[in-house]
Amino acid sequence: MPVPAELLAHAVAEARKARDEGGVPIGAALVVDGEVLAVGHNRRVQEASAILHGETDCLEAAGRLPASVYARATMVTTLSPCDMCTGAILLYEIPRVVIGENRTFMGGEELLRSRGVDVVVLDDAKCIALMEEFIAREPGLWNEDIGEP
Amino acid sequence: MPVPAELLAHAVAEARKARDEGGVPIGAALVVDGEVLAVGHNRRVQEASAILHGETDCLEAAGRLPASVYARATMVTTLSPCDMCTGAILLYEIPRVVIGENRTFMGGEELLRSRGVDVVVLDDAKCIALMEEFIAREPGLWNEDIGEP
Repeated sequence: MPVPAELLAHAVAEARKARDEGGVPIGAALVVDGEVLAVGHNRRVQEASAILHGETDCLEAAGRLPASVYARATMVTTLSPCDMCTGAILLYEIPRVVIGENRTFMGGEELLRSRGVDVVVLDDAKCIALMEEFIAREPGLWNEDIGEP
Repeated sequence: MPVPAELLAHAVAEARKARDEGGVPIGAALVVDGEVLAVGHNRRVQEASAILHGETDCLEAAGRLPASVYARATMVTTLSPCDMCTGAILLYEIPRVVIGENRTFMGGEELLRSRGVDVVVLDDAKCIALMEEFIAREPGLWNEDIGEP
C-alpha cells in the first residue's frame, strides 16, 4: 500500500491540471488495492458544472462500481471535502479519505469520522499554495463553488 | 407559491421518464420563486453514472447559480435524498426540501433538519409505487445505486 504522501501526488497533478484549464484547483484520485482506479478534478468552469467537484468527477470517471470495490477504496483529495463530496464518500461507504489540506477550507471531516471513515489530513504545502493563490485571484468563483454569497 | 403536492408532480414526471428509459425511477425539480428552474432524474443506467441521482442531475441541469438563487429554492424529489444528494443540498444551502416518500428508503432527513433545512415528506402513493415496483424488479441495480452489496 503506497503511503498517503505518494497517493496525494495523483490528486495534486489533477489540481494543477484544473488550474491550468482556468478552473478551481482541486483534484482527487480513487485508489483501490494500491492502484489508481480513476482521477478527477473540479470542472465548474470547464463544464459549467454545479456538481463536478474533484471527488465527484473522480467517482464519475471511475464509473459504475459494485460496493465491494468501494469497500477497498481510498479517496484522495487535495482539499477537505465539501458537504456534497462528503456525502458521496458516505453513500458509497468508502472507508478511507486522504486529504491534502484543510486550512483554506474545512469540509465534512467530523461527519466522515462520526460515520467510521478513516480520515488522514496531510497539511501539504503544495495543496495550501494552490488554494491560497486561487482564492486570492478568484474569490467570487471560489465562493460560488462552496455555495457562499 | 405552489403547494408541495403540485410541486411534486414535476419530480414524479421525471421519475417516470427515468423508469421508461430503463433507469432508476427517481426524479427531482428545483423550484425558485414558484417557478421550475430545472428538472432531473437518476441517470445511473442511461449515462453509466455514479453521481447523477435525481437531485444532482437536477442541480447540474440548473447550471452554475449564485448563492442568492439557491437561497430562494426548494428541492423537490420523489425519494428521501441519499447521503450524496443530502450533501449537495447542504453545500448550496437550499432551505427547503419536499420529499415524495421515505418508506422505501430513508436518506439524510435528520442531517438536513439538524442543519436548519425545512423538510416536508408527502408520503405519496405514486412515488411509493414507482419504487416498490422498481426494487422488486431490479434489486441489484437498486442496491448499487445506494452503495449496498
